[in-house]
Amino acid sequence: MAKKLRIIPLGGLGEVGKNMMVMEYDDRYIIIDAGIMFPENDMLGIDYIIPDFRWLLDKAHKVEGIIVTHGHEDHTGAITHVLEAIRAPVYATPLTRGLLEAKLKAGKMLDSAELHTFNAGDSFRLGPFRVETFHVCHSIPDGVGLGITTPVGLVVHSGDFKFDHTPVDGRPPDFAKLAEFAGRGVLVLLSDSTNADRPGWTPSETVVEDALDKVFRRAKGRLIVATFASLISRIQQVVHIARRHGRKLAVAGFTMNENVRIAQKMGYLDIPPDMLISLEEADKLPPEKVVIVATGTQGEPTAVLGRLAHGRHRLLDVKPGDTVVMSAHSIPGNEEMVHRIINRLFQRGAHVIYDPIAPVHVSGHASQEEMKLLLNLVRPKFFVPIHGELRHLKQHGFLAQEVGIPPENIAVVENGTVLEFTRDSMTIGERVPGGYVFVDGRGVGDIGPLVMRDRERLGRDGVVIVSVMIGPDGRSLVDLDMDSKGFVLMEDADELFDRAGTLVRQLTRSNNGKRLQTQIRDTLSRFFYNETKRRPMVFVFVHRQTV
Amino acid sequence: MAKKLRIIPLGGLGEVGKNMMVMEYDDRYIIIDAGIMFPENDMLGIDYIIPDFRWLLDKAHKVEGIIVTHGHEDHTGAITHVLEAIRAPVYATPLTRGLLEAKLKAGKMLDSAELHTFNAGDSFRLGPFRVETFHVCHSIPDGVGLGITTPVGLVVHSGDFKFDHTPVDGRPPDFAKLAEFAGRGVLVLLSDSTNADRPGWTPSETVVEDALDKVFRRAKGRLIVATFASLISRIQQVVHIARRHGRKLAVAGFTMNENVRIAQKMGYLDIPPDMLISLEEADKLPPEKVVIVATGTQGEPTAVLGRLAHGRHRLLDVKPGDTVVMSAHSIPGNEEMVHRIINRLFQRGAHVIYDPIAPVHVSGHASQEEMKLLLNLVRPKFFVPIHGELRHLKQHGFLAQEVGIPPENIAVVENGTVLEFTRDSMTIGERVPGGYVFVDGRGVGDIGPLVMRDRERLGRDGVVIVSVMIGPDGRSLVDLDMDSKGFVLMEDADELFDRAGTLVRQLTRSNNGKRLQTQIRDTLSRFFYNETKRRPMVFVFVHRQTV
Repeated sequence: MAKKLRIIPLGGLGEVGKNMMVMEYDDRYIIIDAGIMFPENDMLGIDYIIPDFRWLLDKAHKVEGIIVTHGHEDHTGAITHVLEAIRAPVYATPLTRGLLEAKLKAGKMLDSAELHTFNAGDSFRLGPFRVETFHVCHSIPDGVGLGITTPVGLVVHSGDFKFDHTPVDGRPPDFAKLAEFAGRGVLVLLSDSTNADRPGWTPSETVVEDALDKVFRRAKGRLIVATFASLISRIQQVVHIARRHGRKLAVAGFTMNENVRIAQKMGYLDIPPDMLISLEEADKLPPEKVVIVATGTQGEPTAVLGRLAHGRHRLLDVKPGDTVVMSAHSIPGNEEMVHRIINRLFQRGAHVIYDPIAPVHVSGHASQEEMKLLLNLVRPKFFVPIHGELRHLKQHGFLAQEVGIPPENIAVVENGTVLEFTRDSMTIGERVPGGYVFVDGRGVGDIGPLVMRDRERLGRDGVVIVSVMIGPDGRSLVDLDMDSKGFVLMEDADELFDRAGTLVRQLTRSNNGKRLQTQIRDTLSRFFYNETKRRPMVFVFVHRQTV
Repeated sequence: MAKKLRIIPLGGLGEVGKNMMVMEYDDRYIIIDAGIMFPENDMLGIDYIIPDFRWLLDKAHKVEGIIVTHGHEDHTGAITHVLEAIRAPVYATPLTRGLLEAKLKAGKMLDSAELHTFNAGDSFRLGPFRVETFHVCHSIPDGVGLGITTPVGLVVHSGDFKFDHTPVDGRPPDFAKLAEFAGRGVLVLLSDSTNADRPGWTPSETVVEDALDKVFRRAKGRLIVATFASLISRIQQVVHIARRHGRKLAVAGFTMNENVRIAQKMGYLDIPPDMLISLEEADKLPPEKVVIVATGTQGEPTAVLGRLAHGRHRLLDVKPGDTVVMSAHSIPGNEEMVHRIINRLFQRGAHVIYDPIAPVHVSGHASQEEMKLLLNLVRPKFFVPIHGELRHLKQHGFLAQEVGIPPENIAVVENGTVLEFTRDSMTIGERVPGGYVFVDGRGVGDIGPLVMRDRERLGRDGVVIVSVMIGPDGRSLVDLDMDSKGFVLMEDADELFDRAGTLVRQLTRSNNGKRLQTQIRDTLSRFFYNETKRRPMVFVFVHRQTV
């Protein structure tokens, strides 16, 4: 039987192949990306989510390398989790490597990790795979796509991309490489579907530069530009504009400072030597001479902007006259929190500028016309949309049909689906575990659907706890304790709990054996529901005196 | 001292005056709207939210009337709560009245309520207020704005509005009335700010008709159009288009059926006699002969679309070949749930069409250019933006400045702020309670911030409960029970709970008095945090044997 190439998207919260992809040929493996996702609103208490890569564990020694396409959290954030289980060499461009190193250092794994640096355009071999890298434009510099030559054909992986003709770093996408791939013949294209439901073409980063410049021109007081800590190119834009307008730059937030430091060191962020100042220094300058870049665009209460909005920042204080720019989009699910922060900043007298008030942010991902352009540039035999929810992949699939890929050559699959390729065929194979794993505090994967369901119920209706001590006869109630949280305000519900206590007493008195605990629980659950139409979780403990 | 007119926005979840406004002159009151809001994502377990109108309670007998501007939940939903406390006559247009009656009937209050019907254009007197009503366009028919002549001047209240020149019901906005008001001189304009951060002009409902028509032309199988149950005009559009394309119409969902029935009876929905069929009949027709309108566009798991997505509807089943149209926008905070439903529908083989794939929904609220038009039509002396969060009101205030209202004549205020007017002055007065009240099950207002904080903590990290019985000596542990939910999977954490038990035993043995309960709680809280980096709520009960 001829050997087959296998491609498996793993992990991601409904987003296929976003955080991790695996390729296998002849029992040799490579991994592309090792990222995390942030929990959705109803995933109570979860810190973050990592790909479920347990399928790889018994193949760990056969993994030739881990290639990280760019430095965003959803492609780098799980690196310590992955390297703990799979000690393979890691390949990244300089900036991506710098950001990975910060994570490995924090996880005390920097010394033991084997890191290799490449530049966009470099090639290297990993087992049966020859990897050619090519520059792509995205909302962080130094991102790459991959052309992977395998024994059955050439696989092109787009990475996260947009076709920006006027990017901040002046490096347009590597169209020549894509055309060259097409000339050689591409077996399959794996392409970013994030914006597959957006018609048209994603605006260039220069649109943001113009909008920000207008904001700088009009602002009479201090400026605070909030953005993602990883959006190095946005920070570079702020530097350019601040220079034009004679403002000094201060950076607020640990991760952003860390990222600025790394990007500066690696040469991806160009800040004039006397321009960068500390927050303390910024506080002493006239407001119109200062711009502060800060984190917290997702409404996180503990990030800089959240602390400013609540008046809880150690050094900064939002004042009337300040202008705050939200230079980031709200990740779906965060809107309410973001809006609260904006409202609070207004309340404190700041002027807040956000999309759609002005185009102070553009997406880092391709829209429909760019997706079609990539498809037409690469002209693959098979097409697998990745990096998106099912709805995005479906839409990307429709776009591929529009540009002439036959429907049967397009595979819209979910995480954990094994795609098998020969020189002239694509088959949808078995399904392996490929979902996601919750990380909560120190626990990785110890929170399952059961615990989540309990959390949801506890959060919705609260808890009532009854603990009784009964006499040796089993029928006399010697001691009764009740407590409740998150159900009703106990202080206001004396009568309700008095009646509950009476029920417990009655049940104890007529106790017919060992089922007293269950009887109390069921009776009280019914009682509370009938009285309040709420369903608190009821816990009952019964102790029987022995002497 | 000259008497003053007072205007007070009440209630609403950060949205000022959205659910209720109060006007007072000479100790006589009128109420405008009595609506509810839906809880935000982190308001765990809350069913809905009503305005906090306790400030009105001792003035209940002085309320001349309650005017309801249109039939949406956020203007009608609290009517039973309000009428329970304030037995004033209610004024509404026929459709709005019909929708109010359904609520009053469900609350067994229909017989005791005093309802008055008016038509847009009618005038009536309520104490010192002469109320002139005028037709506005919105996403439900029969909405009105109000011109209220008071002893100190004319107050114009926009209601929820957009300037649609080609609305579904063929009734454009009453520009003549607005111009006439301007001629008489307007003291203050209160105007809808919902879309104040949207540049331009909200598209007409006809845009949706064109987009839907295209969907109908292309759909080969069954069509399911999901929208808001109150969006009567959208249902009318579907009726028009379905007739053109020879499809019969079935309605799924209790509220939508109820609304369709009321709107038909009142003459606001025109459905050909043989067109409306039951779901059972729809199931027997060829798929291409059927369109189903359904609720559930906000991702609610129990609404029709949610049940279809999860395969849990009693009569319907989504099949490959079906086309589902999401003809509604996602209310901020609902996006994740909406996206899950869309993904699931795709998974079941349906084709799903949603904005931005096609413009199958438009907003019912004015955008910036319309807001400016209203300001220029009415030319008020003072301006109070209402119906929006602070960010919207601020933005609306900027727009008003752009069209020439002096900043000192614009009042951006929060709920509960008393605005005082004379013929030539506006003063921001005292602040009265004017926030919101949680409704959870049968409880109205018994859930405060304390209970919400407990729910949040319970939901995030779960609960651990320890109940011990100690001997008469106070130091021997006779019985120990532990339980936990939402923290870790207890079955997987034997060792953790064994060690916790050991700690309890040690503390009991060295018990130095009555603080054992607190000691156990604090020690275990610390222990669990150190071991897991989670902070479950720890409850401890101690019973001491008496014999």
